[in-house]
Formats: sequence, C-alpha cells, structure tokens
Amino acid sequence: MGSPQKPPLAHLFKGTFVHASRSSPMTVLHGHLLGVGDDGRIVFLEQADQQEQLAKKWGFKASDIRELSNHEFFMPGMVDTHIHAPQYAFAGSRIDLPLLEWLNAYTFPTEAKYKDNDFAEEVYTRVVRRTLKNGTTTACYFATIHTAASLLLAEIIDKFGQRAFVGKVCMDLNEFVPEYKESTDESVKETERFVRELLEKKSHISENDGEIKLVEQMFPAYKNYADLYDKNKLLTSKTVMAHGCHLSDEELKLFSLRGAAIAHCPNSNFMLCSGILNIQNVLKHNVKIGLGTDVAGGYSASMLDAIRKSMSASNIFQINKVNETGLTLKEAFRLATLGGSQVLGLDDVIGNFEVGKEFDALLINPKASDSPFDLFAADTFEDIIQKFLYLGDDRNINEVYVAGKQVVPFSSSV
Amino acid sequence: MGSPQKPPLAHLFKGTFVHASRSSPMTVLHGHLLGVGDDGRIVFLEQADQQEQLAKKWGFKASDIRELSNHEFFMPGMVDTHIHAPQYAFAGSRIDLPLLEWLNAYTFPTEAKYKDNDFAEEVYTRVVRRTLKNGTTTACYFATIHTAASLLLAEIIDKFGQRAFVGKVCMDLNEFVPEYKESTDESVKETERFVRELLEKKSHISENDGEIKLVEQMFPAYKNYADLYDKNKLLTSKTVMAHGCHLSDEELKLFSLRGAAIAHCPNSNFMLCSGILNIQNVLKHNVKIGLGTDVAGGYSASMLDAIRKSMSASNIFQINKVNETGLTLKEAFRLATLGGSQVLGLDDVIGNFEVGKEFDALLINPKASDSPFDLFAADTFEDIIQKFLYLGDDRNINEVYVAGKQVVPFSSSV
Repeated sequence: MGSPQKPPLAHLFKGTFVHASRSSPMTVLHGHLLGVGDDGRIVFLEQADQQEQLAKKWGFKASDIRELSNHEFFMPGMVDTHIHAPQYAFAGSRIDLPLLEWLNAYTFPTEAKYKDNDFAEEVYTRVVRRTLKNGTTTACYFATIHTAASLLLAEIIDKFGQRAFVGKVCMDLNEFVPEYKESTDESVKETERFVRELLEKKSHISENDGEIKLVEQMFPAYKNYADLYDKNKLLTSKTVMAHGCHLSDEELKLFSLRGAAIAHCPNSNFMLCSGILNIQNVLKHNVKIGLGTDVAGGYSASMLDAIRKSMSASNIFQINKVNETGLTLKEAFRLATLGGSQVLGLDDVIGNFEVGKEFDALLINPKASDSPFDLFAADTFEDIIQKFLYLGDDRNINEVYVAGKQVVPFSSSV
Repeated sequence: MGSPQKPPLAHLFKGTFVHASRSSPMTVLHGHLLGVGDDGRIVFLEQADQQEQLAKKWGFKASDIRELSNHEFFMPGMVDTHIHAPQYAFAGSRIDLPLLEWLNAYTFPTEAKYKDNDFAEEVYTRVVRRTLKNGTTTACYFATIHTAASLLLAEIIDKFGQRAFVGKVCMDLNEFVPEYKESTDESVKETERFVRELLEKKSHISENDGEIKLVEQMFPAYKNYADLYDKNKLLTSKTVMAHGCHLSDEELKLFSLRGAAIAHCPNSNFMLCSGILNIQNVLKHNVKIGLGTDVAGGYSASMLDAIRKSMSASNIFQINKVNETGLTLKEAFRLATLGGSQVLGLDDVIGNFEVGKEFDALLINPKASDSPFDLFAADTFEDIIQKFLYLGDDRNINEVYVAGKQVVPFSSSV
C-alpha cells in the first residue's frame, strides 16, 4: 500500500510528545503519531486516530510503529547556548573566586594547555559524550585560541553526532597569563583559517560589575557596554551575548532592535557572584533568550540544571519584590528548547516538533531503573513531567536523537 | 596476638577520611586507619604508620584491613534537619505557589490522606529508602497529625536502619482544609501517646512575610515571632526552627542565648519565594545551624542539593553587596554533617569521625561506573571532593553506614 512517490520513514513513534511553541510554553500531546523522514525531518505529528489515513499516505504498516510506554514521552533536545568546552576539565571545582580573578587563577592557565592535542582530545571527547547523555542535542561551544584543538573539537562533535557551533577564542590582550594570547595579526589569520560555516560572532556582555568597570576604563568613548559592540558592528541578529546580568533597559532595547540574543547562564552567575539576570525584564523587552550552562563558571554540564537554576534566579526578583511574577517551570522548559534555538538562529530547523523541522529529541523514561525520583499513583502526567524537570537526570534520558539519527546510547563505533 | 580485654572490631578501613570539626570546616586525612567497635563506635582514627601498634592494641591482622581505592573516601553521613516525610509523595511537583497558598492547595490535602495506612506505608518506605541512598544517615522528619501513620514511619525507619527523629504534627487550627486538623484535646492526648524518646519540640519560624504578618495579627501581645515561642517556653536548646529567613538581629541574639537552632532549607526558600537566609549573619550571631531539604517545599530529597543551594543562597548576599564574603563549599559541607548534628543535639554522638562517636558514614566513589561527572589527570584530591559535592549523586555513594551497621546497599531482608 506504499505511496511510491514518498520517501520511506526512518522512525514512526506513537505516544506522548511534549514541546513548546511561540504561543504556549509547554504543550502535552498524548496519543499522537510522529513520523520522521529519511532526511531526519518530521513529516507528520497527528492524533493517533489519523493512523489509517497516515498509513495510506506514507506507506507504513501498524507493525512499523514503535509504541512508547504510558509514562514515557518525547521532548525536544535541549540547546546549550553557552558552554566553554575546554573548561570542562575543571567543571565542578575551582569556582571560589569572582569572574576576573577566576579567569586568571584557573581558566586561562587551563585553556593554555590546549596547545597539546592529546589533552584536548581527552577533554573534548568527555564533554561531548557528557552533554549528549545529559540531553544537549545542540551546543554553542567556545574553544580556545588554538586552531588545531578547536578543529579537533569540531571533529569529535561530528563523530558523536551532536549539533554544535564551535567558536575559536580570539584574544590579543592578556596581561595576567601572557602565554595565553595571540597577536592581533595571528588572531585574524588563525580565525580566518578557522571560520567556515561556523557562527560568525559570539561573546560575553555585562556579566559582572568589575568587568563593566574595566570595559568603561578601556573604552571611555562608548555610551555603554552594548554600544561598544554595536558601534563595532558586533551586535547583530547573529550575535549571542552570554549573561547580560547588568544590561540597562536602554541596552535591552538596542538588543531587541538589532535582534541580538542573550544566553542566560544562572549557575555561573550564582557561582561567580556575577549578578542575577532579571529574565522577566528581558522577556518584556522582547529580546531573544535561551539558557546556557557556561561550564565551568557554571559547575554543571546539564541543561536540566540550567532549567532549575533559572527558576531560582527568577524567584529572587519576587523575593526582593522587584517582580510580581516569576518564570514558570514550563517557561524554563521553553527557554531550554525553543528559546535556545531562537538564540542560535536555528528555530526554523529545531526547537520543537513542528512538521518540517529536524527531529532532535529525547526519549524520557520517568520510571527508568535507578531513576533518581519516585512516582506515585496520584501523579498526573503533568506532575511526572515536573518531577523529571526538577529531579531527573541522564538515567531518565534513555535515547537521544539528532536530525533523526539516534546518537545515545552511543554506538559501539565511537 | 589479640588483646582479650578489648571487644572485637566490626570494621577496619584504611584510606582517606574527610570530615569537619569545630576548628576546621573540612579536614582531609589521607593514609589513615579507622577502627569501628562492635558497638558501632569509632575506636581509633590514626595515621597508617601506627598500624603495628594499633594491631597489637586491638588484636587485628593486616588481612582484616579493608583498603579503599586511591580515589575513594569516607565522609560522615549527612544530617537532614528538616524534612516532611508525607510530602515526599509530591516532591518535585506542585511548587508554583507561595507558602500559605501552597499549604492549602497541595500540602494539607495530601497530608490528610495519611489516615490511610497503606498509602502511608508506600510513601514512607520510598522516602526512607531514597534519603538513605542519597546519603542522609540522620533525618528530622515531620509526619502528619495521624498517630498510627506516624508510628508506622518510625517502624520503617527502624527497619531500614536510618537514624531519625519523627515528629507528629499538631494542628488545632485549619480553616482552609478543615478535615485536616485535630481538636486541642485530641492533639494533646494523641501527642502524649506518640512522644516517647522522640524530640520534644520542633517547628517553623519566620519563613516568609505573609506568615509573619499572620502571626502578628493572631498574637499581637508578643514583641516578635521568636518572642511568641520563647514566652511559651518553646525556644530552648532542644528547639529546631526551620527557615528563619526573616529573623532580626534581636531574635538571633535570643536564639543564641537559648541555644535554639536553625534548619536552613534553601531549596524550599527559593521555590516558595519565602526569602533568603543570610547565613553569614546567623553564623556571626553564633546560632547553631544545619541544612534541611524541607521536602516538598524543597523539591529534592538530597542533602547534596541542600549543600549546592546553600552556596547559591549565600552568594546572593555578595551579589547584592550585603556581605563581603560568602559561605565556602567546605563550610557548606560542615553544615550538612557536623552542623546538622549540633542542631539536633547529637554532636556528641555523630557528625564527624572523632573517636567515641558512632560510625555514620558514606563511602564515596568518585569513579563509580555511570558517575555523573568526569575526572581528569590534573585533578587534585580536593578537586575530586569538590566535583563530588557539586556534581555527585547516589551513584557515587556506594555504601552507607549508620552506627557501624551497613544499611546501603539495602539488605535483601528489607
């Protein structure tokens, strides 16, 4: 009964799908059928009572359908909008200093070690495996100033099947760790060598007070931090600025106007005492925003941690009576999925289960053996989703797909 | 070569021991020998070069020693100073309201269900198993107003070998969920039936603004919230008050004078938007303080989460320029172990590895299979401890001991 003009389906799932859209932070679709084409794109997502018509149209048999268990669900893969791959070597340690001291004491000396490709290969392999297991299907990685190691990171990402941007760091000023910098000429030359299809511009803005004062001293001619980037043509719709804790309303308006985006990294902001982003104010200004782990200023390479920390950060503005309402867990879920895709300019490709997008997805099993949380008979499906978002971990993320290809569990070839 | 007057040793470990004392928030003892007597008490903790003398004195052979791997270490079992066992049923869900609304919408209706012993048995079994797996060797549990179910909780705790206080809730006022209260007479009678050796007085104080205003309205004759408890002889050296986010310096002085203690529950304070405790100020006033999960206002039943959240909470006071320094990770470790034992008046029995105390301990394996974090060659032992405290979970807690008895992995009889 196949319809010969249609390409064959790569996957056919029946069960519950949970995702976000522009109009709803979380939609739970029970009893749905989702088909993934051979090119990794979602070809349909329909109520299961449409099975007969879909089977005719797409040429599949009932036995081709993989039916999820009652408690299982698919959610979109998560998007880490800001993570420093080389810093994964010390993630979870050495976060006892404010930003500028922390960079000089721990970060630059560690990053300088990536001139050694063997060291780079070990850490980069671990960070890609770890983030994939944790459900990060797309990551926006910073590497180091070393072109060879940065290209190696891209190779490893490709081998494991993660979707990612890799940015080579450019740094022609570093008085504290002088062995970790380039000359301006080197930096331009090496970066031209590095950049092909990769994201053109990525950086940090307004993370903490000390940094802002330093920028003011170095560049007194500019109105503010955002103006410095803007006047140098670095604030565009392809710009992702991490943190933004201390951006003024004026700067947020400029971000909105330029279509520039913010990578909110609450774990890092807490740990380095950088500041707390008023996310409600960012959303009010209609600025694109997603979440980032900011490893290793943030100690966790899990986007679930970023979701949880974004709730804590938002609640502080209610506690301090700055805001009347806070981020909801559903909104945090949207930030980690669709929001991240918007920040990286990929929302026409990934971010939710809209037909035509590529199937980047996590199969969540809230009853996994050794699950870190318990379910009870009275739990509604919404309770179960909440328990996963607040308490779940990689033990509940049983399968990970990127562009329709299953990448976790890892294949034996990687 | 045994010395006949000495009782035999129950355990003999050689390796690294990490614990806190009054003078040091964390001491790392490498290459030490620790002996546990048949009564569960620590009989020695000495450098391994004392092995020969110890062997003579205690009558053991080299082959009796269990040697830990290089990366493994023992730490004291953690003390959860405030956890509502019945609320574990919905931990990780339904935390989208401030305290008083949250109590009426979710908590009281759930707690009312514990008149059903079967329901109680299921949830109480799960919460005791879960907290033990997470490394909580001692817990200060609130139950419900139901005497039978509360006694059942004590039975389950006993079966699994956890050290715990169980408090029956007393409540003669509840206008929102009237089926969940007792008359004052019932409450007194049932509580007399319940209290034997259990902790005499446990409660909550100054958790959020709405609650404080309600207390002021109900009891206008008292100077403040602490005064209300004090004048009614409920602020003593056996008192453990949860939260204390909004206590004034005057109230903290009264706490210090009476020897009353605070259970700091940062996850709950964030989630219910109750407030943030200025822990540096509490420590300055020399008030006893430990950490609590406050399940289910706090979504996590893990004391490791409480350690992490206490760091975020403390850092907010640096970000807001109220304090110049914040809690260190080592200090948070002390709060979760020795601090908790002080809060519960058990610091002569547990809290660290001093000779004479009972051996409540966790065997930590930072290289456990499926560990949630990665180690690298450059990691120092201190880095490894930090990675465990920030990123570890029950997968790294390979064995749990209470009073010298191994309780995790669970024996097949429970």
